[in-house]
Amino acid sequence: MADRIYLDWNATAPLSAPARGAMLAALDMVGNASSVHGEGRAARRLVEVAREQVAALVGAEARNVVFTSGGTEANALALTPAIEYGAVKAPLDRLLVSAIEHPSVQSGGRFARAAAEEIPVTPDGIVDLSALGARLAELKAAGERALVSIMHANNETGVLQPVAAAAELVHAAGCLLHVDAIQTVGRIRCDINELGADLLTVSGHKLGGPQGTGALVRASEALHFPDPLIKGGGQERGSRAGTENVAAITGLGAAAAARSASVQADGAAMAAVRDRLETGLKAISEETVIFGSAAERLPNTSLFAVPGCRAETALIALDLEGFAVSSGSACSSGKVTASHVLRAMRVPDRLASGAIRVSLGPDTTEAQIEAFLKAWKTLVSRLSKREKRGLAA
Amino acid sequence: MADRIYLDWNATAPLSAPARGAMLAALDMVGNASSVHGEGRAARRLVEVAREQVAALVGAEARNVVFTSGGTEANALALTPAIEYGAVKAPLDRLLVSAIEHPSVQSGGRFARAAAEEIPVTPDGIVDLSALGARLAELKAAGERALVSIMHANNETGVLQPVAAAAELVHAAGCLLHVDAIQTVGRIRCDINELGADLLTVSGHKLGGPQGTGALVRASEALHFPDPLIKGGGQERGSRAGTENVAAITGLGAAAAARSASVQADGAAMAAVRDRLETGLKAISEETVIFGSAAERLPNTSLFAVPGCRAETALIALDLEGFAVSSGSACSSGKVTASHVLRAMRVPDRLASGAIRVSLGPDTTEAQIEAFLKAWKTLVSRLSKREKRGLAA
Repeated sequence: MADRIYLDWNATAPLSAPARGAMLAALDMVGNASSVHGEGRAARRLVEVAREQVAALVGAEARNVVFTSGGTEANALALTPAIEYGAVKAPLDRLLVSAIEHPSVQSGGRFARAAAEEIPVTPDGIVDLSALGARLAELKAAGERALVSIMHANNETGVLQPVAAAAELVHAAGCLLHVDAIQTVGRIRCDINELGADLLTVSGHKLGGPQGTGALVRASEALHFPDPLIKGGGQERGSRAGTENVAAITGLGAAAAARSASVQADGAAMAAVRDRLETGLKAISEETVIFGSAAERLPNTSLFAVPGCRAETALIALDLEGFAVSSGSACSSGKVTASHVLRAMRVPDRLASGAIRVSLGPDTTEAQIEAFLKAWKTLVSRLSKREKRGLAA
Repeated sequence: MADRIYLDWNATAPLSAPARGAMLAALDMVGNASSVHGEGRAARRLVEVAREQVAALVGAEARNVVFTSGGTEANALALTPAIEYGAVKAPLDRLLVSAIEHPSVQSGGRFARAAAEEIPVTPDGIVDLSALGARLAELKAAGERALVSIMHANNETGVLQPVAAAAELVHAAGCLLHVDAIQTVGRIRCDINELGADLLTVSGHKLGGPQGTGALVRASEALHFPDPLIKGGGQERGSRAGTENVAAITGLGAAAAARSASVQADGAAMAAVRDRLETGLKAISEETVIFGSAAERLPNTSLFAVPGCRAETALIALDLEGFAVSSGSACSSGKVTASHVLRAMRVPDRLASGAIRVSLGPDTTEAQIEAFLKAWKTLVSRLSKREKRGLAA
């Protein structure tokens, strides 16, 4: 697939060169990181170096990084009523998640269904802080404590969420904040303390690391999970049992170190390419709607639709032309379904069904975007004609 | 560590050449296996080929293989009261596990602590079938249904468990059987239907695949997990959310295919090397105790002790001499603690504290074993002298 153009970095990013190199070296070693012999200790060292690298990328302490098998597992570990905070051992009463969270957060983790609630978002795709504040005040008055989960940036629109402001509300109500930062870590500055997050989710394969690894990061050692999701051996200081995936963790660490060095420059470059894309889209059709464009967004994500162009048709046509893009919809089952994100933003289903997501990486070039725009122009003209015929029929 | 001799295959095995090759190819591709574009479909194909390969190794159907992040997660997924079996939707009442299970099974998964019970083992390290049968009869009389979890071979002693006989008892009582086959898959013949297991756990890194991958295999599609451990996207037919770790799954598949071809020949070869080891151990000290040697065992595992030689001291000394072996003890926290397996076999703590596990792989040579025996002889003579001095003091 050498001549293809990959524009679906929010689904998964190519393995970066530093991560690849680190993984290959680790794969050629043998050792269980819990073994006491030399091979085991060498594996342990790789894991602990990676822990430092991931911690540094998000401004945390290494001892507060728990490696998991990915972002979804990290979210699942985080979303439990059984989070102890220093001397506070009582289980949390409620879970509040924004209406645009990823399915792994919307599932509610280990909270009872009846204990989970949604916080709405504005039509711009931003969590509604006044609704959050009002609900937290009610809970405080009722003597209830909640875990609140708000993503740093939405995976479909790229819209950044007012996490730091939410954190103030959450903490004032005596509650805890979990931030799914899967789409931001390594793309924009993402510091657990600046965000005010108590827990932060990191995914390896969105930032140039391998699939199958991620982390849940705590702001403080005072936060404790007495009932881990995966129980057994004492790995990860008792927070996550199972033989450590040394090669993947090493790859994640190397990717994190590489992103630490270049996140700012790459962000600016991606934003320029993304802006070129959006200018081009508007030039091709004045009717183009770019979702969430009134809000602050990730530098690499553009979710758009042209009325009358169905995403399913467009994705297949673009794929045939050599472009990998996605719909704005959840597609973990391989099926295109209505986007809960656009519904939460009150986008009419008819328009939402045309949403195409283009997501870039640091390697994406302007030439690739020009090629995409050329193909898109042809496609829109073809689909528009078909739509007009359809309307006339 | 080129001049070292690795004899700790039960902790983790070196990545096999077929697995390494498959992984490298997969790592150089980009694609989320749930994406609909060409890159995504190519990733999906790799996952489904691996699913066939793993299914073939254990005599199951591909659609009944659920990939996880490893054996521990597979055990955690399996051990839940919420297993539906065809029309039977009622939750299971109890969990019965043998006294020698791995900590990930002994933890009880999602069963309440009060619902979990242990089934004893004989001094030979074999699960006590009469105790199991008696308890199942009681449960049946009380109208209770249980999930029973018995490992195929113990990780410390290598003792094979009478799984097929247990399965008859379990099924006669209307209960379900989970078999942790982490130490047997790829080492000896392991067919889910011959064993009579309803659920079977596979780990990637014990059979030449990478760390961070494994599978839970069902005997029948009638078994359903309505409440997956890791919730979110619809991956693995709703049984396990999270972006598939394509490279690791591909590596596991390639390792499984390689083991399918050579399991029998390698088993015989390993048994010969293991027997040479044990003859040598007995020749070095007549007092050597080989745990579980009266029982049928895995061809690759030997757990032994010489009275008066402490394992901790021996492991460190052997490590310095270039040999990676382990104690019989759980060491997932990096600490040597008393072995629950030897305790369950009623081995006195003083003898158990000297247990050394040597576990071989298909690559282990007789020359490596001779070198080990030479080092062991010197060590035993030194430690015995020290012990005598200690006794005299």
